[in-house]
Amino acid sequence: MGIDKLKVLDKSLPSQVTVSDVKIGDGAFAFMAGPCAVESYEQLYTALLSAKNSGANILRAGAYKLRTSPYSFSGLGDAGLEMLISISKELNMPVVTELPSTDHIELFKNVDIIQIGARNMQNLPMLNAVGKTGKPVLLKRGFSSTIEELLLSAEYIINTGNTNIILCERGIRTFETATRNTFDISSIAYLKNRTNLPIVADPSHATGLSELVRPMSKAAIAAGADGIMVETHPHPENALSDGMQAISPDELNALSNDIKKYLNIESKFL
Amino acid sequence: MGIDKLKVLDKSLPSQVTVSDVKIGDGAFAFMAGPCAVESYEQLYTALLSAKNSGANILRAGAYKLRTSPYSFSGLGDAGLEMLISISKELNMPVVTELPSTDHIELFKNVDIIQIGARNMQNLPMLNAVGKTGKPVLLKRGFSSTIEELLLSAEYIINTGNTNIILCERGIRTFETATRNTFDISSIAYLKNRTNLPIVADPSHATGLSELVRPMSKAAIAAGADGIMVETHPHPENALSDGMQAISPDELNALSNDIKKYLNIESKFL
Amino acid sequence: MGIDKLKVLDKSLPSQVTVSDVKIGDGAFAFMAGPCAVESYEQLYTALLSAKNSGANILRAGAYKLRTSPYSFSGLGDAGLEMLISISKELNMPVVTELPSTDHIELFKNVDIIQIGARNMQNLPMLNAVGKTGKPVLLKRGFSSTIEELLLSAEYIINTGNTNIILCERGIRTFETATRNTFDISSIAYLKNRTNLPIVADPSHATGLSELVRPMSKAAIAAGADGIMVETHPHPENALSDGMQAISPDELNALSNDIKKYLNIESKFL
Amino acid sequence: MGIDKLKVLDKSLPSQVTVSDVKIGDGAFAFMAGPCAVESYEQLYTALLSAKNSGANILRAGAYKLRTSPYSFSGLGDAGLEMLISISKELNMPVVTELPSTDHIELFKNVDIIQIGARNMQNLPMLNAVGKTGKPVLLKRGFSSTIEELLLSAEYIINTGNTNIILCERGIRTFETATRNTFDISSIAYLKNRTNLPIVADPSHATGLSELVRPMSKAAIAAGADGIMVETHPHPENALSDGMQAISPDELNALSNDIKKYLNIESKFL
Repeated sequence: MGIDKLKVLDKSLPSQVTVSDVKIGDGAFAFMAGPCAVESYEQLYTALLSAKNSGANILRAGAYKLRTSPYSFSGLGDAGLEMLISISKELNMPVVTELPSTDHIELFKNVDIIQIGARNMQNLPMLNAVGKTGKPVLLKRGFSSTIEELLLSAEYIINTGNTNIILCERGIRTFETATRNTFDISSIAYLKNRTNLPIVADPSHATGLSELVRPMSKAAIAAGADGIMVETHPHPENALSDGMQAISPDELNALSNDIKKYLNIESKFL
Repeated sequence: MGIDKLKVLDKSLPSQVTVSDVKIGDGAFAFMAGPCAVESYEQLYTALLSAKNSGANILRAGAYKLRTSPYSFSGLGDAGLEMLISISKELNMPVVTELPSTDHIELFKNVDIIQIGARNMQNLPMLNAVGKTGKPVLLKRGFSSTIEELLLSAEYIINTGNTNIILCERGIRTFETATRNTFDISSIAYLKNRTNLPIVADPSHATGLSELVRPMSKAAIAAGADGIMVETHPHPENALSDGMQAISPDELNALSNDIKKYLNIESKFL
Repeated sequence: MGIDKLKVLDKSLPSQVTVSDVKIGDGAFAFMAGPCAVESYEQLYTALLSAKNSGANILRAGAYKLRTSPYSFSGLGDAGLEMLISISKELNMPVVTELPSTDHIELFKNVDIIQIGARNMQNLPMLNAVGKTGKPVLLKRGFSSTIEELLLSAEYIINTGNTNIILCERGIRTFETATRNTFDISSIAYLKNRTNLPIVADPSHATGLSELVRPMSKAAIAAGADGIMVETHPHPENALSDGMQAISPDELNALSNDIKKYLNIESKFL
Repeated sequence: MGIDKLKVLDKSLPSQVTVSDVKIGDGAFAFMAGPCAVESYEQLYTALLSAKNSGANILRAGAYKLRTSPYSFSGLGDAGLEMLISISKELNMPVVTELPSTDHIELFKNVDIIQIGARNMQNLPMLNAVGKTGKPVLLKRGFSSTIEELLLSAEYIINTGNTNIILCERGIRTFETATRNTFDISSIAYLKNRTNLPIVADPSHATGLSELVRPMSKAAIAAGADGIMVETHPHPENALSDGMQAISPDELNALSNDIKKYLNIESKFL
């Protein structure tokens, strides 16, 4: 079957995903912000409040961190998820967080957008299980997956009847080591020309360097992205994971101003 | 924690894995052969019998095929697994096959070696679950994973108390398209110098071309591999999956002769 | 010697290169446009006139095409160079074109900016010879060179006493095949944070697809680029080389409008 | 023009290249050894004598080192070339060394095999100039060139009327950093199935680690290589360039024994 026959490329698919009262796609921009990992209630609250104050419309944080090394900080687990849901309710904002395994589906019933992480982009049982929840899904591109493979993974989800899919470009693995990954920004424009599914960019993981988050967020909007997902931390230098790529509350404010200018020029709104 | 402190690099680890009466590592060579996918009882029986007749000492076949596209042949599932176990008992040979999800652990109780596929190399719940079975594990390197990441995934398994781990090099994704993947043969010699865990090569997936299976199998032995895993099919041109890389029964015989000559020169035995 | 000690990273280096009356860097933007190859006087004149009319301030075209295959169109050679210089004088605009070998240095005395192509980024005799001309140099990043290697090649030039160096990001080779190369846009922001040398982007080669030239040009400005270099052709469908990535005169006009809007927001000028 | 029509794939091409009284290809094996760089007369003489004593039949060393950084040791230049030619005459063995630029062609008239380095694989003027000498050419694969591109570069040479071409696989650039490059061993078997041109392997550059030179040399023979090129140094720890990948005279002897055993099994001769 040719790639051009895929349902994800059907031009009659809706071009907007709705999460609570937030819309993504078709002019509506998603500004997702929060810490890489839930480290404590206080750290999480501070980070998410600064996200809200900076104009973010969706909160993010990881409760279960799937780390390459068994000796890295792996998150607070169920307790972290509870804190995240509790604070998102208090701040009255939707939340996106990564599902660690299909066994956790039930625990994620109060999560607004279920994230399928880069490592699980081709975890077929997970694609199927998340699809069946009917909930909005943030599908991250695998760090060594082609654009075509990303679309085929989205096709697995769409085959469950769930069209609430948000694609996410988060950098691919190449020979370059100056940045953590290589931000494949062309993929955003390429996908926007072919599918109605909204696509967001994650400049934090794509570059791994906090200094690049602002310019790459602007570049993502210029490329046609329907949203960005960025990592912020009250004190990046003390973060328990990925501190190098986290921006401070002040930088988040500056980023927010950038975003607004760029959205304005593209006639999009936050 | 430095990579050099990992348990998988501990020189007091056993250097041999035992599966039924077959040994792998420390001079003992694993010759794993069988079809990519279980297609029917007859196809499977024919393929596995020719594997046995060619001198293979471990059988392989996939019952659950985790395919990139939802429209590719995905295997016979549970029925395929039953056929595989039944034929392996009849032929009195151990069998290795890929686990599709942690939900299938119980169904795999009669499988001799549980394979964690390349896509699941960093599926942490799966590493944990398979480790806890205590069974021998064939851990395939992810197609875009570094050698260090492969070792870290093995470390997750070893942390469950299970040291029956066989590493598998199966090619990495690069810019070269003449072959399906790029067979990173240096990784075999590199790993043999650092860990006691046996390492096998999968030249079928590494190259994607049946014409390269024989030379790359010989090369793998020269590089120090403790085994090879190859795909064979009674009629490669009719295979429902990966026919391009399957070798015929005649080629399997020729391969077997090659292997014996090369093992002899390296003072290893099948 | 540490990379941080390189002369190219010296913050007292001038941050602007002047070519005739055109400035590049430090707020001044270079809009380089023209056909991939000189095919005929008429084709060249038409393409360069449309470039001028669209607001480009530097002309480009290749007289000597260094093709991967000996059976591809390799340009008009010396005759093409003459046409290019003649038309640039008539249109009263500076021109950039690629040097095919050090033997051609003398012929390039009327070329305003000498381009060192991606394949020659590490051609040390060429770096040295071009440096010694004292002329502005456009140094393209090799398609498999790291950012550090690009800087080291620039260092060879700077060691000749020539600081008129413009770096150019034109895409790197990765596993992704949907685009011709992977546009490493992060490298632009990364380099802007480290060196005073101007950096321009070549979205035509970076993506290989004309549909991506506009969004990627905008993204390049957002990332901090000091210029773009794009390929245009009066009739892209009839181009003798790289027609897939050439934009038409109408698209060039639309691109020009985009550029102006984006430069405005970044307080830069064309 | 389809790749399958290339002259380099013509099955009537000779399958052996003759250099002085040494033959390469069609069963005859080239064992090329010597230091990375000429450092001094004494170092060179000691290294080349140990190469001869270990059974090497072709000498190698670099007089002009094309280094990524202008601050690395760049060789002794013309003086180094003279020493190399002088010692090769004294030891009565042919020599292969890398051409730094087309300006040096005349100086290379006493060099037996002219090496076109990886960085110059697509330096078209150099391919042309070296081809026209009629001398045997060792064409190294670019570190990011595909197999098809290697063949197309060889086609440029063959179009000068020179069929004395030896291809060389020396590793490609990938995401893996444990080894300097990724030794694409499949390319050897793939090429042997398609072209009559001899192909040799350079395990020193392919891996960058001296510990891998022996296993990878054996693997190269198993894959069908017509020769290997290895770097040796009297005192690897003191080498002025690439010491990490140089093997000592003792290791060279051990390698020689390995080679003979492996050639014997493949019915080839040194």
